Amino acid sequence: MPIYNAPTKDLQFVLHDLLKVSEQDIPGFSDLDRDFTAAVLEEAGKVSTEVLAPLNVVGDTEGCVLENGVVRTPTGFKEAFDQMREGGWTALDAAEQYGGQGLPYVMHTAVNEPFVSANMAFNMYQGLTHGAYSAILEHGSDAQKDLYLPKLASCEWTGTMNLTEPHCGTDLGLMRTKAVPQDDGTYKISGQKIFISAGDHDISDNVIHLVLAKIPGGPDGIKGVSLFIVPKILHDDDGKLGARNGVSVGKIEEKMGIHGNSTCVMNYDEAEGYLIGEEHKGMRAMFVMMNEARLGVGLQGYAQAEAAYQNAVAYANDRLQGRAVTGAENPDGPADPLIVHPDIRRNLMDQKSFVEGARALTFWGAYLIDRAHKNNDAEADGLISLLTPVIKGFQTDKGFEYAVAAQQVYGGHGYIEEWGMSQFARDARIAMIYEGANGVQALDLVGRKLAQDGGKHVMAFFDMIKTFIKENDGNEALKADFLEPLKAASKDLQAAGMYFMQNGMKNPNNALAGSYDFMHMMGHVCLGLMWARMAKAAMEALEDGASDKEFYETKIATGRYYMQRQLPATAMHLARINTGADTVMALEAAAF
Amino acid sequence: MPIYNAPTKDLQFVLHDLLKVSEQDIPGFSDLDRDFTAAVLEEAGKVSTEVLAPLNVVGDTEGCVLENGVVRTPTGFKEAFDQMREGGWTALDAAEQYGGQGLPYVMHTAVNEPFVSANMAFNMYQGLTHGAYSAILEHGSDAQKDLYLPKLASCEWTGTMNLTEPHCGTDLGLMRTKAVPQDDGTYKISGQKIFISAGDHDISDNVIHLVLAKIPGGPDGIKGVSLFIVPKILHDDDGKLGARNGVSVGKIEEKMGIHGNSTCVMNYDEAEGYLIGEEHKGMRAMFVMMNEARLGVGLQGYAQAEAAYQNAVAYANDRLQGRAVTGAENPDGPADPLIVHPDIRRNLMDQKSFVEGARALTFWGAYLIDRAHKNNDAEADGLISLLTPVIKGFQTDKGFEYAVAAQQVYGGHGYIEEWGMSQFARDARIAMIYEGANGVQALDLVGRKLAQDGGKHVMAFFDMIKTFIKENDGNEALKADFLEPLKAASKDLQAAGMYFMQNGMKNPNNALAGSYDFMHMMGHVCLGLMWARMAKAAMEALEDGASDKEFYETKIATGRYYMQRQLPATAMHLARINTGADTVMALEAAAF
Repeated sequence: MPIYNAPTKDLQFVLHDLLKVSEQDIPGFSDLDRDFTAAVLEEAGKVSTEVLAPLNVVGDTEGCVLENGVVRTPTGFKEAFDQMREGGWTALDAAEQYGGQGLPYVMHTAVNEPFVSANMAFNMYQGLTHGAYSAILEHGSDAQKDLYLPKLASCEWTGTMNLTEPHCGTDLGLMRTKAVPQDDGTYKISGQKIFISAGDHDISDNVIHLVLAKIPGGPDGIKGVSLFIVPKILHDDDGKLGARNGVSVGKIEEKMGIHGNSTCVMNYDEAEGYLIGEEHKGMRAMFVMMNEARLGVGLQGYAQAEAAYQNAVAYANDRLQGRAVTGAENPDGPADPLIVHPDIRRNLMDQKSFVEGARALTFWGAYLIDRAHKNNDAEADGLISLLTPVIKGFQTDKGFEYAVAAQQVYGGHGYIEEWGMSQFARDARIAMIYEGANGVQALDLVGRKLAQDGGKHVMAFFDMIKTFIKENDGNEALKADFLEPLKAASKDLQAAGMYFMQNGMKNPNNALAGSYDFMHMMGHVCLGLMWARMAKAAMEALEDGASDKEFYETKIATGRYYMQRQLPATAMHLARINTGADTVMALEAAAF
Repeated sequence: MPIYNAPTKDLQFVLHDLLKVSEQDIPGFSDLDRDFTAAVLEEAGKVSTEVLAPLNVVGDTEGCVLENGVVRTPTGFKEAFDQMREGGWTALDAAEQYGGQGLPYVMHTAVNEPFVSANMAFNMYQGLTHGAYSAILEHGSDAQKDLYLPKLASCEWTGTMNLTEPHCGTDLGLMRTKAVPQDDGTYKISGQKIFISAGDHDISDNVIHLVLAKIPGGPDGIKGVSLFIVPKILHDDDGKLGARNGVSVGKIEEKMGIHGNSTCVMNYDEAEGYLIGEEHKGMRAMFVMMNEARLGVGLQGYAQAEAAYQNAVAYANDRLQGRAVTGAENPDGPADPLIVHPDIRRNLMDQKSFVEGARALTFWGAYLIDRAHKNNDAEADGLISLLTPVIKGFQTDKGFEYAVAAQQVYGGHGYIEEWGMSQFARDARIAMIYEGANGVQALDLVGRKLAQDGGKHVMAFFDMIKTFIKENDGNEALKADFLEPLKAASKDLQAAGMYFMQNGMKNPNNALAGSYDFMHMMGHVCLGLMWARMAKAAMEALEDGASDKEFYETKIATGRYYMQRQLPATAMHLARINTGADTVMALEAAAF
């Protein structure tokens, strides 16, 4: 069975050495000292290793089953979910007035990583609930908040998001589900929603569906969409459960992975629903949650790669095959372990340097969300808005790629389900698709975010890199290995932005044909920036006489690898972007 | 259900416009005129679409089942296999004296593509048999040939390859299966073999296992390995079946994909076996088949991408979502088809330009194998030996990558098994692993093939590119779009070779740390060369007044895309290679 151990030291490194969270002037951050976060993360790690990881293969093998209209989750899921609830893990960053612990979002994110690495399908039940909590917190009435938030924070009730319909995913303006206003102020919701994660199950007392639907007579397209609360079981104002609502499971989808999560077709048949916020302003309510949700999916990408990496390392140390070309390293054994071979190292270093860079970027993103919300910081808000498609798109593409690379270390055994490496790849695959497929992320980045507020945020991003390089100009230890590659990569990214400005006016396809490359390029620049900062932080720790010398030296060596071996990708992406749309759009549709 | 239609026109284009097979001075090639190959390929396409493709999902869903020691294949497999046998499809390139049709290997390859695209798991039953046929043809005694070859050619009996054991895959010197000589000249084989594709099943009368084993007292390691024929059911000299041999199925592996093929653990318990060739020369016998087997796997890579691509194109034309940024293209419909979006185009062009380039490279490889065998052409033999790891490693990596990319076009539906896109990705995944994992291909390329015969073959490869560029120097239509990118990419590849020479002496890790990048780089150069040649062939066809103008123009446009958008990868690979082994090998094994 696959192993998993939370990388607590690495989580702590990002929180404290890199982000210095406890020194930040953000409400609640001063509580996040090293000892406190260590205690929380160690406990979360224990739960991950002991409770969640052992259920990962169980969830994949058993899957969820629909029997007589009731969804049964895999063996052990209910008990584990109760343990999560009782341990307070589901309410870590919920407001204290709703029964939460009021911790910052960055802390929720740090704790979430081991949960997701250990069992992604399982963790989605609380992940979706977290999203529903945020939507109601942001847009619900006081009565809705008082009723639903405590139950969602504790996961006594869980939540779902209902956007997609059979004929529309990205293009929600085509939506057909309708909401007919009733005299008592409620609505009757009718229609079919698909791909509803955690749509129904047996691990909570009620399911609160957040459903996008159109009120007849409203504006056409996306502007006529409203957001509703539709409980699976109706309840009174105190939350006492009553009759079943008009919502049922059509079927459970057979998926490539995340079998432990029940992905349902949900049928709404005059189900009772309650408007959240204003009529026809449903998309606005959804968009507010998107930075968080997409950051969470970006985390899934690298968290699956982390779990797969840990197993690949163990296998590479254990499996004896061939001899080191520079001379036997295990002369008494029949062969050397795989890890002596340079190409195995290359593969493991690719994985390691990506995962650690992506972790830093994700935590930084979570920190920016905290700063934006808690300090009303418009700059932080603009920056995270810019970075969100990169975190989601780049990290899930790469996360999948490296889960596949980790599987490759196992040779033939990687293809056999029993070893568990296939599951990491299959589970990671969904993250490239949901919460906006990665092509849509690229479109969002290049088509919306670059030009947002007059291009202010991307300018600020470039300035931040420039400033960092300038401030550290005299640092010889950083210069050649970190600052110069970062400068070159950032220059490539700016050149691509310039190409879009000069050629996108003439024909917007010239920009959009390069959007995917731009997203990846920016991902590399972001990770390059993270590695330069992490290397600096590690060097400072060493200068300060840190006891764990080897840990910090490994950080620097891993960063050096990323700068040397990964950042050169930016030049390739720029070369592709600079060819514009001509060859991309050359063919008639019929010629494909 | 997924669609599949054989791309007969494209297959014909490679055979005739590019390779001009019927004009080649190779025995049997003059028969391959356009009409003949068209008739064969159209018939093969029909079988693929009507018989094999409909069973692809069936095979994936039902899988193979072991019941009371007997393996049951999915519904319909036996009937389809009989149809393949009766149609003569399994004996296309077998010698006429053994009941085959004696066609060149290049023709077998061209026919094989639609079979593999339509149903990879199914086609492996005959693929493995083809391998066993070749091994016995090359190394068996006359009596063995007369007995086994007709039955293998007709697939009345099928074949397997038994190399891997639980503790050794790549490093076969660690093998434990033993073969004890008996007084009657036979051997008693005992041991366990794993990952045996088509190891047992119910679609043929007998299974002929080719088994690697060690004769006690022989040389240590790989030099003490011999090759044996071990029939599932014993038989007399006329092939009349008798008692069961001492070989049984331990279990069927649960795999990520190719569920339709029975991947077995095979237990040998004093099974009767017959030596092929000489004692202790088993690896040599295996290696002879490797160019063919690896080329076949390289074909699986792009053939799965082709099948996935066809479906992605259909979906992109069908699914209405969003509007073209340059103005509605389907103004009467609720939205435009996906294919109007530049990033969808980019994705489809990536797939298309890879598949068509890989097809050309694979057919050219098969043609080189014919030339090497039938004309005893040492240069062709050296060249295909050099190209084999590239065809296998590069094409299966990319084939999987593009099967995943095709799945992405479907958005959420791509993740649902019902739509069939997940299967293409899951099936394609194995090709990166078996017949030598791709890291081993890269090692073979850089560690062995580059220096083989004093580097003669790689020099010949570079000369061939140089000559092509020189010969077409005055061709303005080719120059900027094809010759210049090819020249630049080839220069990068040579620079990488130079780096290996200069730095690999000092420390071989400097070469091996870049082996994977080199393999990919060389893959791009090979496809660049193929596209330059295909563009030239298409231009010539247009000049000659070809009736299907659009087909040839599409070829040129697709090639232009590859040169512009894919060849820039070589510079990235070179940059990575030029950093040597320092950062790759920097960490202690314990620091991972």
